[in-house]
Amino acid sequence: MTRAAELFGQPLAVLNLGLTSFADTLRQCGTRVVQVDWRPAAGGDREAMAALDALVGADGKARPEIANANQEAIRRLGAAKPVLEGIGVALEDIPGMRSDLVLHSGPPVPWELMSGPTRGAIMGALVYEGLAKSPEDAARLAQSGAVELAPCHHHQTVGPMAGVVTASMPVLKVRNVAFGNLAFATLNEGLGKVLRYGAYDDTVLERLRWMQRSLAPALGAALQAHGPLDLQALIAQALQMGDEGHNRNRAATSLVIRALAPHLVEGKTAPAEVGRVLRFLDANDHFFLNLSMAAAKAALDPTLGIPHSTLISAMARNGTEFGLRVSGLGERWFCAPAPMVDGLYLPGFSAADAAPDIGDSVITETYGIGGFAMAAAPAIVQFVGGRAADALRYTERMYAITMAEHAAYKIPALDFRGSPMGIDLLKVVDTGIVPVVNTGIAHKTPGIGMVGAGLVKPPLQCFVQALVAFAAEEQRGRR
Amino acid sequence: MTRAAELFGQPLAVLNLGLTSFADTLRQCGTRVVQVDWRPAAGGDREAMAALDALVGADGKARPEIANANQEAIRRLGAAKPVLEGIGVALEDIPGMRSDLVLHSGPPVPWELMSGPTRGAIMGALVYEGLAKSPEDAARLAQSGAVELAPCHHHQTVGPMAGVVTASMPVLKVRNVAFGNLAFATLNEGLGKVLRYGAYDDTVLERLRWMQRSLAPALGAALQAHGPLDLQALIAQALQMGDEGHNRNRAATSLVIRALAPHLVEGKTAPAEVGRVLRFLDANDHFFLNLSMAAAKAALDPTLGIPHSTLISAMARNGTEFGLRVSGLGERWFCAPAPMVDGLYLPGFSAADAAPDIGDSVITETYGIGGFAMAAAPAIVQFVGGRAADALRYTERMYAITMAEHAAYKIPALDFRGSPMGIDLLKVVDTGIVPVVNTGIAHKTPGIGMVGAGLVKPPLQCFVQALVAFAAEEQRGRR
Repeated sequence: MTRAAELFGQPLAVLNLGLTSFADTLRQCGTRVVQVDWRPAAGGDREAMAALDALVGADGKARPEIANANQEAIRRLGAAKPVLEGIGVALEDIPGMRSDLVLHSGPPVPWELMSGPTRGAIMGALVYEGLAKSPEDAARLAQSGAVELAPCHHHQTVGPMAGVVTASMPVLKVRNVAFGNLAFATLNEGLGKVLRYGAYDDTVLERLRWMQRSLAPALGAALQAHGPLDLQALIAQALQMGDEGHNRNRAATSLVIRALAPHLVEGKTAPAEVGRVLRFLDANDHFFLNLSMAAAKAALDPTLGIPHSTLISAMARNGTEFGLRVSGLGERWFCAPAPMVDGLYLPGFSAADAAPDIGDSVITETYGIGGFAMAAAPAIVQFVGGRAADALRYTERMYAITMAEHAAYKIPALDFRGSPMGIDLLKVVDTGIVPVVNTGIAHKTPGIGMVGAGLVKPPLQCFVQALVAFAAEEQRGRR
Repeated sequence: MTRAAELFGQPLAVLNLGLTSFADTLRQCGTRVVQVDWRPAAGGDREAMAALDALVGADGKARPEIANANQEAIRRLGAAKPVLEGIGVALEDIPGMRSDLVLHSGPPVPWELMSGPTRGAIMGALVYEGLAKSPEDAARLAQSGAVELAPCHHHQTVGPMAGVVTASMPVLKVRNVAFGNLAFATLNEGLGKVLRYGAYDDTVLERLRWMQRSLAPALGAALQAHGPLDLQALIAQALQMGDEGHNRNRAATSLVIRALAPHLVEGKTAPAEVGRVLRFLDANDHFFLNLSMAAAKAALDPTLGIPHSTLISAMARNGTEFGLRVSGLGERWFCAPAPMVDGLYLPGFSAADAAPDIGDSVITETYGIGGFAMAAAPAIVQFVGGRAADALRYTERMYAITMAEHAAYKIPALDFRGSPMGIDLLKVVDTGIVPVVNTGIAHKTPGIGMVGAGLVKPPLQCFVQALVAFAAEEQRGRR
């Protein structure tokens, strides 16, 4: 009898690694099988596996210079203290802003490759700025190269969805008081037909003009009377109130309204206009999103550029590509095609209408909130799909790819465990687990707007590329 | 060999019911034991077991007339639609209110037996009304019988903690629009040194005067401009935002502020005064408690007096006794000594300072929120003690003693299961599981105020008494 025949002649108890189909077949034959959910590191990419081997010791720990750099990166991220300091104007406050510069979300992308919502938002913004007479005129202008297009991230700014920022727009000024750096974002316009989803009709532009003329000065004055808003404290409280700081911001928005309302009333704004401001805020549960994003950007910026650190310091999408930046590799973007979002659609829309994943709002996940804190916001599954237990599971999974737990952002349902903070490129590639991201869904055609919301998986490919580049860089350094 | 010796000579696998000490001993001897958490129905009370036998068939189901009556009771409770209709004045709006009548929380109790906080609140209220010159004078007046003392519940009213309501106080007017009935509560004063916790110094009385003079008219006008506030919708939303509607009301309070702020601003109240009103609301996360209580009272009142129904239509405590009312037995109270609260204390206070359990706020649990919806509010354990998992467990336990699940009050952490609604006297006595109640803790001495918050178990004895009375009533009916 051969050894194999001998083996299979006995009653078997099988341990199956990886592909479940082997286990399924054995089970159907009545064999006892234990299935182990295993996959090769780096999705089996040989180059990435070699890179991992070069960066991680036999004990599974990162090389000491990487571990030390990551300790510093996570110290900075944990120490961040973002506060809303004031309301400014893009041209005056954003470094390098010019009247012929249009900022957009995500990594760099030329007009020709831009997604529908980004094009739509740029067209709307150029009309709003008076640089074009019509959306069509604006499209020609953008294509001509007469205006410069650049990522928000290159100007200390973040923008949700299309993320378009132009010179006249009012901006939130968020300072990380622990490090002194500033981050910027526009004021949130509400849901439905809005510029950031690529809509640009008159109602959109009229709203933007009112925000500039009336909302921003009123809020700015109220904020000045109140003093800086402690965004870390607000996010921490909101996580106790069913928000996760990306796609559910109802609690934080409510807390901002509560904090500013008395100062709005006591200021110089006419009561009728204060009423309009309060109605606008009350009608927009996402008002806090832009605050949350600017807070995350302000918190993450000091982590960029720490040699040897594998912390992900930024993630962003422009509707065409998903991109990320690694602390130790500085300002370089690693990109891959933007994936589609798996979500729920507004009445009258379906997946066929959707643009690919878009927006800088994934900066919240990079900071350890948003999708990473979904366990704090089980009600969000009614907006993005899934069951309450999924929300818990998403957060629990993120502990496997992060470096630490946030000391202030506590998740009640996990017995007040800190939210998973600081994505480690090594861990993402090693486990094959990509960050979970909550997001909105824009119509793929310029001029339409929001069509749904859901969850999206960033492409593992960006992380693999970044890791290979990181290993090469480390290699060069050691020579 | 005797049968017993034969039995114990074999290897044993033991199933142990009830007392765990038998199982513990067997386990120590290395015997396999499965412990079953069992206790005799009605805590072993023979009279109650006989009553249960008379009311429940051999199939474990209540007799048909009881089942039918309970179906009607739960239909009414589920159909309730409480809305805040306006702000009134106790003397003008509360049925039977008089200037020499003082309402208090819980079942009836004479001055001589009243708890410290109730006495303190009555003393303060009599000075506030100008009926006494000093707290000492007020105590003499209350003792003399020259003012009448009566439960809030006898006047369609509920009051948190001491629950004292007198003629001049502004009151919330909550209508159950499905049945037309009204319920009332005072406006919440905030935390710390407040009348409802038995404090009565000048700061307490000054605040009450400002509430009467300024807060109530401003809110009343804003509410009129806004239209009735849908309290069911607010409670439903707040349960998605970490509130449970009794001891955590931060979300619902925020939502009320958001809803009313524009109307406050646009009304005739001077901006400085609107600012003060908004600051007062912002400083008081418990503002919604009194709305939640009046909503529960309005929802439950139509369930009282349905012949054969074993629904608990009211629970309340006066700091001396805990009392309850059963639908089928009408307005009669079943009482037992008020228990002590198991909770967390404010700095400088301990269990030695605590008054026994007090207040009408347990009407929220009777309605299926508060302690019954703790799974929606895991963050509350930081206020009342315990771990987040306890909050889930408390809610899950309450399904064993309730008749239904609320169609609008969904608990995200339980995958949007409806909150356990409608306490069944039969189930409480049968299982020995008493309702779980979140509550504040008052100082036992008049004039001091709040000292903590926690959880309390109502005395099973009240439920047993009520069941025995119910069985006797059914018996009489069948003769």
